[in-house]
Amino acid sequence: MPSPASLPFRPTSLLFGGDYSPEQWPESTWVDDIRLMREAGVNTVTLGVFSWGLLEVDDDQWDWGWFDRITDLLADAEIDIDLATPTASPPIWLHRAHPEILPVDRRGIRYHQGGRLQWCPSHPVWQHHATRIVERLGDRYGSHPAVTLWHVSNELGGGNRRCYCDASTAAFRTWLEHRYERVDALNAAWGTAFWGHRYRTFDDVIAPLDSESAQNPSLLLDFDRFSSDALRDHYRLERDTLRATGVRAPITTNLMVSPHGSVADYAGWIDDLDVTAIDHYTIADDPHRERELSFVATRTRGLDASRPWLVMEHSTSAVNWQPRNPPKAPGEMTRNSLQHIAHGADGALFFQWRASASGAEQFHSAMVPHAGADTRQWREVVALGAALGRIGEVAGSLVQRSEVAIVTDDVSLWAWQAGQKPLHDHPLHLDARRWFEALAARGLGPDIVPPRSDLTGRALIVVPSLYLVDDATAASIRDAAHAGATVVVGPLSGIVDGDSRVRLGGYPGAFRDLLGIVGEELVPLLRDQRLLLSSGAEIVDISTRVRTTGAEVIDVHRGGDLDGSPAVTRHPTGSGSAWHLTGLIDAGFAEVVDRVVDDAGVRRRLPSSDQIEAVRRVADDASWLFLLNHGSTDAVVPARGHDLLSGATAEGRFALAAGAVAVIRE
Amino acid sequence: MPSPASLPFRPTSLLFGGDYSPEQWPESTWVDDIRLMREAGVNTVTLGVFSWGLLEVDDDQWDWGWFDRITDLLADAEIDIDLATPTASPPIWLHRAHPEILPVDRRGIRYHQGGRLQWCPSHPVWQHHATRIVERLGDRYGSHPAVTLWHVSNELGGGNRRCYCDASTAAFRTWLEHRYERVDALNAAWGTAFWGHRYRTFDDVIAPLDSESAQNPSLLLDFDRFSSDALRDHYRLERDTLRATGVRAPITTNLMVSPHGSVADYAGWIDDLDVTAIDHYTIADDPHRERELSFVATRTRGLDASRPWLVMEHSTSAVNWQPRNPPKAPGEMTRNSLQHIAHGADGALFFQWRASASGAEQFHSAMVPHAGADTRQWREVVALGAALGRIGEVAGSLVQRSEVAIVTDDVSLWAWQAGQKPLHDHPLHLDARRWFEALAARGLGPDIVPPRSDLTGRALIVVPSLYLVDDATAASIRDAAHAGATVVVGPLSGIVDGDSRVRLGGYPGAFRDLLGIVGEELVPLLRDQRLLLSSGAEIVDISTRVRTTGAEVIDVHRGGDLDGSPAVTRHPTGSGSAWHLTGLIDAGFAEVVDRVVDDAGVRRRLPSSDQIEAVRRVADDASWLFLLNHGSTDAVVPARGHDLLSGATAEGRFALAAGAVAVIRE
Amino acid sequence: MPSPASLPFRPTSLLFGGDYSPEQWPESTWVDDIRLMREAGVNTVTLGVFSWGLLEVDDDQWDWGWFDRITDLLADAEIDIDLATPTASPPIWLHRAHPEILPVDRRGIRYHQGGRLQWCPSHPVWQHHATRIVERLGDRYGSHPAVTLWHVSNELGGGNRRCYCDASTAAFRTWLEHRYERVDALNAAWGTAFWGHRYRTFDDVIAPLDSESAQNPSLLLDFDRFSSDALRDHYRLERDTLRATGVRAPITTNLMVSPHGSVADYAGWIDDLDVTAIDHYTIADDPHRERELSFVATRTRGLDASRPWLVMEHSTSAVNWQPRNPPKAPGEMTRNSLQHIAHGADGALFFQWRASASGAEQFHSAMVPHAGADTRQWREVVALGAALGRIGEVAGSLVQRSEVAIVTDDVSLWAWQAGQKPLHDHPLHLDARRWFEALAARGLGPDIVPPRSDLTGRALIVVPSLYLVDDATAASIRDAAHAGATVVVGPLSGIVDGDSRVRLGGYPGAFRDLLGIVGEELVPLLRDQRLLLSSGAEIVDISTRVRTTGAEVIDVHRGGDLDGSPAVTRHPTGSGSAWHLTGLIDAGFAEVVDRVVDDAGVRRRLPSSDQIEAVRRVADDASWLFLLNHGSTDAVVPARGHDLLSGATAEGRFALAAGAVAVIRE
Repeated sequence: MPSPASLPFRPTSLLFGGDYSPEQWPESTWVDDIRLMREAGVNTVTLGVFSWGLLEVDDDQWDWGWFDRITDLLADAEIDIDLATPTASPPIWLHRAHPEILPVDRRGIRYHQGGRLQWCPSHPVWQHHATRIVERLGDRYGSHPAVTLWHVSNELGGGNRRCYCDASTAAFRTWLEHRYERVDALNAAWGTAFWGHRYRTFDDVIAPLDSESAQNPSLLLDFDRFSSDALRDHYRLERDTLRATGVRAPITTNLMVSPHGSVADYAGWIDDLDVTAIDHYTIADDPHRERELSFVATRTRGLDASRPWLVMEHSTSAVNWQPRNPPKAPGEMTRNSLQHIAHGADGALFFQWRASASGAEQFHSAMVPHAGADTRQWREVVALGAALGRIGEVAGSLVQRSEVAIVTDDVSLWAWQAGQKPLHDHPLHLDARRWFEALAARGLGPDIVPPRSDLTGRALIVVPSLYLVDDATAASIRDAAHAGATVVVGPLSGIVDGDSRVRLGGYPGAFRDLLGIVGEELVPLLRDQRLLLSSGAEIVDISTRVRTTGAEVIDVHRGGDLDGSPAVTRHPTGSGSAWHLTGLIDAGFAEVVDRVVDDAGVRRRLPSSDQIEAVRRVADDASWLFLLNHGSTDAVVPARGHDLLSGATAEGRFALAAGAVAVIRE
Repeated sequence: MPSPASLPFRPTSLLFGGDYSPEQWPESTWVDDIRLMREAGVNTVTLGVFSWGLLEVDDDQWDWGWFDRITDLLADAEIDIDLATPTASPPIWLHRAHPEILPVDRRGIRYHQGGRLQWCPSHPVWQHHATRIVERLGDRYGSHPAVTLWHVSNELGGGNRRCYCDASTAAFRTWLEHRYERVDALNAAWGTAFWGHRYRTFDDVIAPLDSESAQNPSLLLDFDRFSSDALRDHYRLERDTLRATGVRAPITTNLMVSPHGSVADYAGWIDDLDVTAIDHYTIADDPHRERELSFVATRTRGLDASRPWLVMEHSTSAVNWQPRNPPKAPGEMTRNSLQHIAHGADGALFFQWRASASGAEQFHSAMVPHAGADTRQWREVVALGAALGRIGEVAGSLVQRSEVAIVTDDVSLWAWQAGQKPLHDHPLHLDARRWFEALAARGLGPDIVPPRSDLTGRALIVVPSLYLVDDATAASIRDAAHAGATVVVGPLSGIVDGDSRVRLGGYPGAFRDLLGIVGEELVPLLRDQRLLLSSGAEIVDISTRVRTTGAEVIDVHRGGDLDGSPAVTRHPTGSGSAWHLTGLIDAGFAEVVDRVVDDAGVRRRLPSSDQIEAVRRVADDASWLFLLNHGSTDAVVPARGHDLLSGATAEGRFALAAGAVAVIRE
Repeated sequence: MPSPASLPFRPTSLLFGGDYSPEQWPESTWVDDIRLMREAGVNTVTLGVFSWGLLEVDDDQWDWGWFDRITDLLADAEIDIDLATPTASPPIWLHRAHPEILPVDRRGIRYHQGGRLQWCPSHPVWQHHATRIVERLGDRYGSHPAVTLWHVSNELGGGNRRCYCDASTAAFRTWLEHRYERVDALNAAWGTAFWGHRYRTFDDVIAPLDSESAQNPSLLLDFDRFSSDALRDHYRLERDTLRATGVRAPITTNLMVSPHGSVADYAGWIDDLDVTAIDHYTIADDPHRERELSFVATRTRGLDASRPWLVMEHSTSAVNWQPRNPPKAPGEMTRNSLQHIAHGADGALFFQWRASASGAEQFHSAMVPHAGADTRQWREVVALGAALGRIGEVAGSLVQRSEVAIVTDDVSLWAWQAGQKPLHDHPLHLDARRWFEALAARGLGPDIVPPRSDLTGRALIVVPSLYLVDDATAASIRDAAHAGATVVVGPLSGIVDGDSRVRLGGYPGAFRDLLGIVGEELVPLLRDQRLLLSSGAEIVDISTRVRTTGAEVIDVHRGGDLDGSPAVTRHPTGSGSAWHLTGLIDAGFAEVVDRVVDDAGVRRRLPSSDQIEAVRRVADDASWLFLLNHGSTDAVVPARGHDLLSGATAEGRFALAAGAVAVIRE
């Protein structure tokens, strides 16, 4: 029941700033903060994320004074406030009074105070207290002129992704009853006849607490779905509470879109957000962390391609939670921020404004580092603020839609991760990233879309390791092929249905007919084992024994147990074609990509390469070509237009120094 | 109190079939099942393993109809039923009503519903419910003509090997009182004076729940023994219940004989089984998984050499619980099955008949795969059924007794695994396998026997890393040497007595006099460390500083701290001799084997090699030579007779293709 | 309230013997024990460590007879008794009656009976029972003539370092109230504004039970401090109880001084001990375990340099708790013992006298091994006893004070280990060991001292990776530099203050001005990453981006993100100088050491090298040069005097065989 009166999120410039925790500092520091914010061109700060314990200092006892003062200070400085409800971190007094709201792990052991996100979203006592603080905030600041955006809680699920307490079990039963209506439908969907685990009523179900031996994968998957929905419902509870107090500003929460299975199924959350917002942190030991960022940013814009989005958190430099946390290289923060903007973000905000001296994140970098403003890092922050100012005109524009789409799905990854599988150490999600990188480097600017996405107009659709495929998705992909698309189905795609039941009759059951093949047996390989193909290509990790039922064989296994068995097939279908890769192709992958690209007839439209990332944002009457040189050598890139950052003009060829970024208004 | 009226297990053909779970499928599928079973020559299915929740649908509420129908269908098709009591997987309703029957782990935390074997065998509430369902099954199907064998529960201990609940503690106390009679005997046996852990009464003892620091190894070992007995007692409870209802068919349960320490001491179970039955699954990353199978099959027949046994479960192809689960290579299933038959099995049954679409084992292979009957795998199943038909005459015959015996013991492995040891990462069990492989490849067809086995007539007795040796075993081995056998005692054998007390006065206390040596100090090596011997041989992992007291020195350490200390010794004793290896010999092991084989005067009687496995089954009036070519090249093997599989005749030399099997009636 | 009447610890010969557990053996064995003790020259045994359960056989029921007999037997044999209170291992009956005294882990789960140190020092029920047995022992044996030393409990914290039970929480609150007085001081010190974790009262604090996500590092550190104090308070409770019964003999407890963070902050315990005593066990896979021993012994004497100390436990050969437990090489035990003596120990005692047949430590070596007295090991024990007799005159002397001091601190290591850090797998303590080894090999005989140590007179002070530095320590080091010392501050030193708050304004906040630099950013390196310096040196694991504010640059980073940034700096200050290493220098470390040694003007005064360890003990009127050849080749060492061990005379050059030890009276 969001109020119809709510305002859209439509900034006129790019948001720049970060999480601001004035409560950690004496008020004398606030003055310095405001001064530095203005120096850097900060136009937005996220306020209040961890302030609950300082606002509601005891049960229903409130201290608003300091918050009033800082909001007014910011308003005076014309810095917008992204006002966070502080529910990510309940006060100590609440946990002392109500330890029953703390999450319980799968052994049945409750966690204790002292962390964050330490609550069960399904617990009524929690909901009562969360609602009250949100309501008070809405009442008090709902019409504050500086509050232009609301930030519900923080990284929901980051610490409380799954709770196994009795309240969760109760809510899970309600959720299941809603999904299945009758318990026999649940018994059928989960196949509970196996091990004789028939449920008499929904009340027989409990959260999948540890049973030592393996558990039903459909139960595990539904619990993941329920847990995702419980978090979303908490979001909705807060949002609706805010709206009910009269809040009109747009409302969102910061998602943690991950390439390896997010904590929630954000594709199902997106309609509830007035603007999509994500947190993103690069991974230090990823040899191409800029590509991981690119993947995540592309995936984020794919959640709702109709609007710009926000980077609500990223880091100026090191984080503190990886095994080793190196700082970003000089220029890397700038490239990271502009890369997000390139992919459709309308702002680049940081966690956090000023580095903490104490607390669990005392070694997390910030816009103002421990060493203060006379630092290389601060100077880069200031320069970034200026750069964002120079390219503010891109705000509101969208990334050009691609002919190429890669289908990924968190639920499918969860299904793969839940229960016993043909191979347990196979990072299924890496296949999508590999396709993304290959297609991006070919200048095709691929989109990454969720399964329910409209595939109309896509010329090339890649379905890499999409383990779980429900009937609607299978039909949608089949229809796209019939309508002319080239579809590529990777190994382990379409194995199970929406209930995580194996689709019988030959793998991959969801696509068997489309592909014109029947898979008889999944063939996991041992680590370091490789299968050779006739073309010279090599398969690692997984292949499949298939026979064709109409498909043309492009490549076959050569030698070994699968000798002569097809490895790459193509099946003409309707106006399009459907390719299958039975295995994970390692050496020789580039050639396969070239062939399917060729088959799809899609053409380069961006000057991208392994080194150069190019993305185009378009508006009704303009377009901007973002160019990022991620390499260590200078490059010359075909482009035409005016670089908003350097002021240079590109007349067909544009010189882009190592590490540099350009934003060419075309 | 088994009824004297019970019938012996004496099949006239080889059993072929698998676990059948019709409850997972619509009845329409059953017709197809029966048709395919007949096509494959299936003559036996195991029914009911996981049916409890579908038979007793609520507390004392029964649904027998579907079970009546399927048993009759099978009877009509002349397929025998191995009827399982379904206690491996209690219904959900039982766990809801009685969570107290769930196992408790060593931290004291109870597990939850949703797995299998989720019960404490010592709990009275569990025993009540298990007895009732077993009684009802016995009453209803005890005289069903198709039920030719009873299968008590399933893989007892696979999930509930040890339970630390209060009921277990109570039962453990009773068990201890039975073993020790007086608590002072327990105090003496466990050496509780150490750390002052004296028990006043048996009621002071608890299950060895986690105490953070190291625990008394004798306590741990006795708890393992108790846990094994508790599972066996559960078997007995079910068996006796069945007999009391009038069941006359033979009764067994499927053991999980393991090379690395089984969950129970099966040597103490065997007299309670009417036929020995095991489950066996190969390990994908074992480079010689056929040898591991051979080891287990040999060990199984060694449990009771007086009768054939059964493979109750093995797999047609991949399993789902290893890190990576590759399928079996074409032909591998056939070799596996025939290998078991070669080693004295009278049947080769699979888990399971039809691959599940859902549930925890949805990716476990089956006779009918997900892709159905038009598959390579199904065709191999059908061919295997035919092959078993052709060699049916071997049923009832036994494997020829060997002059060579290797002594192994689960209790000894448990003792090694319990508590702090000279080295904690040393897989003690591998030494026995190494000896087995070396002696088998020399055509000696070694037996593997438990410690209490009658050693009369053995010419060569190997005691590899038999850490715990009780007085009776020590005497039996000594007597065998006196009577003429060559005994070989490996490193770490005979270190502790039956209570896991170090035998004082010099290692190995159990064999010191027999060997004519005194070991002063155990010498674990660091990983990658090697000790050189005078002969050029090398020792890894463990050696011992010994001095001789009568033994002849065959090889000595050369260099290092043990320079000049004996490494291989031989002590003539009575009519035989006793060898000692102070350490684990790596390079040079083959030469040591040759020397002891030579010393024992045992001669090749099977055409075995590293590639060819040969086993002979004998009956009163016939013998069959099983030949398996595990290699990738064709071979010619000396043999004489008629190959029941191919129909070919062997006239001294028999051509055996790579991967092929022959069963030569001699 | 120690009684003023207590006697000092001033032995006239070196203590030799070990932990003696007669209760594990029949009394007939005691006679043999005494005979063997006299054969070996044993003059002291530790009695009673694990005897509680055999003395107090049930609640307040006592069996003193056997203890009376053995104490008298020892007295008759003129063997001194180091009488242990047996509180390290409470009886089973006590845990049965009072499981609430068992420690609780950070998940909130209580441990169980069956280990050792299984009690919470803060629990009143525990304190009651511990006090009673100590009182009875004091009453009964306080004036026994053979009892020359009291040994309170055993390895306090080895198993109960931290307890998270309610009693611990209560005691922690009291401790905090004592430390902070007002809760707002705690809130400020811990920075609880972060995550809004403000405490209203001390009663809001709980022991840092697991909260799943990261916790406040200052809370964690204070809990470590509290836990250390709780153990020390337990020591004091026992000591005061003994004194109250009239005990006059010196009292101590055996500390576990560790190079990688001890279980307690022993620098704060030392004033409560009448003699410093440690247990030390070498680590088998340390390639230079003799250097680790040297480090620990040096650190021990640094705790209180005014008096000799004791090795209360070390091992004759193997232990049983490492992954692999090789025996000591022949001669190694002797070198270990004499090495401790060299570093100021007045005795070398072992765990234990006679190897146990049973119990958790049945494979721990002892003076009398399992194989008895006719063994190489026993003969080395006897020879060691004789050697200690020959050098008895060193008793009471002290190790010569060094011009060089290395500052280390357990609390600093705890602070580094608590909570999220720039790199989590970096063993901070290794830096101190590296400096120690380098300075020792240069013949400088470095001392290792706690932060509060008086630095007067030190010419070279190394502060390697001293992460936490409080204001007093910072001032003390600064003052020493001003007064003329050369100070070397390693990477990661001085980052946080005494409350584990980052010192703001540039790293390292504690030393920034002293060093004349400002660190802008910590730069953890990925594993295997190396930074090159201009000199050719290489940095691993960690560096820092710094700018100078007065320091001279000695070496700079060359290439990479830190190109041109200082790596080694020197800042003249007062009469001294202050060096900074921004990173962990790997290749090139020796050159850096040479330069700072040169800068400090300190000179070799011992004939040490990588192979030869030389230490000098001095008395008022004599000095002894201990020489140990840890190498495998003979060496000639400059020395002058009389070797007490061999009787040889050194006239400037002394031949020291591989593995040999000499004690030269100079």
